Amino acid sequence: MFAPLQNDTFLRACLRQPTPYTPVWLMRQAGRYLPEYRATRARAGSFMGLATNTDYATEVTLQPLERYALDAAILFSDILTVPDAMGLGLSFALGEGPKFAHPVRDEAAVERLQVPDMAQLRYVFDAVTSIRRALNGRVPLIGFAGSPWTLACYMVEGGGSSDYRLVKTLLYSRPDLMHRILAVNADAVALYLNLQIEAGAQAVMLFDSWGGVLADGAFQQFSLAYSQRVLRQLKKEHGGVRIPHLLFTKGGGLWLEEMAALQPDVLGLDWTVNLGQARQRVGDRVALQGNLDPNVLFASPAQIRAEVARLLHSWGPPGEAGNTGNGHIFNLGHGISQHTPPDHVGVLVEAVHELSTQARGTP
Amino acid sequence: MFAPLQNDTFLRACLRQPTPYTPVWLMRQAGRYLPEYRATRARAGSFMGLATNTDYATEVTLQPLERYALDAAILFSDILTVPDAMGLGLSFALGEGPKFAHPVRDEAAVERLQVPDMAQLRYVFDAVTSIRRALNGRVPLIGFAGSPWTLACYMVEGGGSSDYRLVKTLLYSRPDLMHRILAVNADAVALYLNLQIEAGAQAVMLFDSWGGVLADGAFQQFSLAYSQRVLRQLKKEHGGVRIPHLLFTKGGGLWLEEMAALQPDVLGLDWTVNLGQARQRVGDRVALQGNLDPNVLFASPAQIRAEVARLLHSWGPPGEAGNTGNGHIFNLGHGISQHTPPDHVGVLVEAVHELSTQARGTP
Repeated sequence: MFAPLQNDTFLRACLRQPTPYTPVWLMRQAGRYLPEYRATRARAGSFMGLATNTDYATEVTLQPLERYALDAAILFSDILTVPDAMGLGLSFALGEGPKFAHPVRDEAAVERLQVPDMAQLRYVFDAVTSIRRALNGRVPLIGFAGSPWTLACYMVEGGGSSDYRLVKTLLYSRPDLMHRILAVNADAVALYLNLQIEAGAQAVMLFDSWGGVLADGAFQQFSLAYSQRVLRQLKKEHGGVRIPHLLFTKGGGLWLEEMAALQPDVLGLDWTVNLGQARQRVGDRVALQGNLDPNVLFASPAQIRAEVARLLHSWGPPGEAGNTGNGHIFNLGHGISQHTPPDHVGVLVEAVHELSTQARGTP
Repeated sequence: MFAPLQNDTFLRACLRQPTPYTPVWLMRQAGRYLPEYRATRARAGSFMGLATNTDYATEVTLQPLERYALDAAILFSDILTVPDAMGLGLSFALGEGPKFAHPVRDEAAVERLQVPDMAQLRYVFDAVTSIRRALNGRVPLIGFAGSPWTLACYMVEGGGSSDYRLVKTLLYSRPDLMHRILAVNADAVALYLNLQIEAGAQAVMLFDSWGGVLADGAFQQFSLAYSQRVLRQLKKEHGGVRIPHLLFTKGGGLWLEEMAALQPDVLGLDWTVNLGQARQRVGDRVALQGNLDPNVLFASPAQIRAEVARLLHSWGPPGEAGNTGNGHIFNLGHGISQHTPPDHVGVLVEAVHELSTQARGTP
């Protein structure tokens, strides 16, 4: 059905197999920093107009691959498609971020929540298949979803938040309601990711973008436990091929051991984590993805190369598998800024490939 | 000059000496959640009107002590008084947070920066002396300042920020300029805190509120090194009495060992850190302050008590000094929310005192 894969460095790195260089992709690599993305979005009229149209979603997913030698593509979509399908009424007001018309704030609203009919999310699965075909085997395609906790933050707050007051008030005062929201979210997300896998996603990533705002203790109960509920339900292979699972908790550096215990294949790291220390803590159990500060991309090409070199070097000496850097997937520690100069992304990708090839040396 | 201290539990806990219970104070305890604070602020006309008037500053500092059995008072002021004195033109637009009329964004602006004449900050030192007198020995008075890095964030961004793009761009592209800003800030802050000590502050706290937004590596170079430059210059005693130094990096849980190596007396912790683990990592070198999520205060009294119990319990069994909880100062992991019900703060303070007294048991 799909063309054979020509570049498997990303998938091999996910499984901690040797690769000739460190593969690299960037969170939000198809996005507003690219003029061609802004042009397509203007044609689509809105963010959801882009995300719900198979052709547009395919077009923007492939845009960064035309410019840069990235080692993976990631589905162009949004984590809030799932609560939108639950009937919460998602919209993106220009320059204001996401809003839900019907936030979940009382017992009745929580009771009404259900795992949505996945037919409503068919536009996502169609996009996955379309993108996979358009990729034609160049690089693997990553599917994704928001973690149950992260979705709950938006569902209760009704949009973004600076203090998470509403969702945490619910968590501390009505933990029973919060557990019900999270259980529904977890089962919905698991179903959603499995259908992405069936549609053609070759790896899946769970974005726990707001796990790091929780207190120790609350994180384990309300974020980690439900990420686990998702991961346990995910297909581990499709058509006889392993499907790596990636888990990223922004601000979760203190909990790496507990996240590794969920047995994802890869843990994403933000830039506060020392890569060498993370490798010592959990690198014998999972691959690690990250973790450059996206703001480095505002510095000069020479400085970008120096920061890439520093990060690659921080991985440390070769492990049991031999080459230095095996088990590392280069990425930013968060989504790329819309203000990033596109040329600087090219400098970054080239630097990762060149410097990591050198670091591996001759076998 | 000042009345003798009647309640020294906070100061003893800072020095990891035994106390009959766990002392408690709250970051931003004199603030907008209190109706009496809002009334005084309305009379003063503005935030800076409050902070620069000795009588008002004294009045609001003491307000929470009238309601709650808090074990310390903290100077009512703002961390941005120091860059304001450098001539950057601080203002607080209603509901918008701080703004600088003259942000520091180019080489010329950096060159102009100097340690300000401390006479411009005399209103702060006068407030310290006035508050210390008004306290009349009830509890000790904490002075404070922003860390060099945290001040630099505001000075370069010109106000708050969600991505720290401008300050990080400067950091990565012109580290020389960033080092100069930080050096000036460090020397200004050290001078400022020493004058607070001379005016009557019995402990001083350095708020590295934005240290946690830095990448590992950058944190050590641009935040920690300059917190160290401050701490090294601080008076360790005044009039023969020890002056404890407190250091708090929000989001700094991964770097506790490195912060403890600066030899402050106390490290502040945010709520992402497990208190028992922090104690194992650095509790033999420093006291620990924290770390309840301020959002717990939106739950019911019974739930607040349960969370206090959980936090106290997480400290673990008695250490070498005997009683459980010695070396712990209870606080929130961040400033109290303006939306907090005042009665709930009373529940919290009572719970800390009652439950920690019980936990210590009979000697």
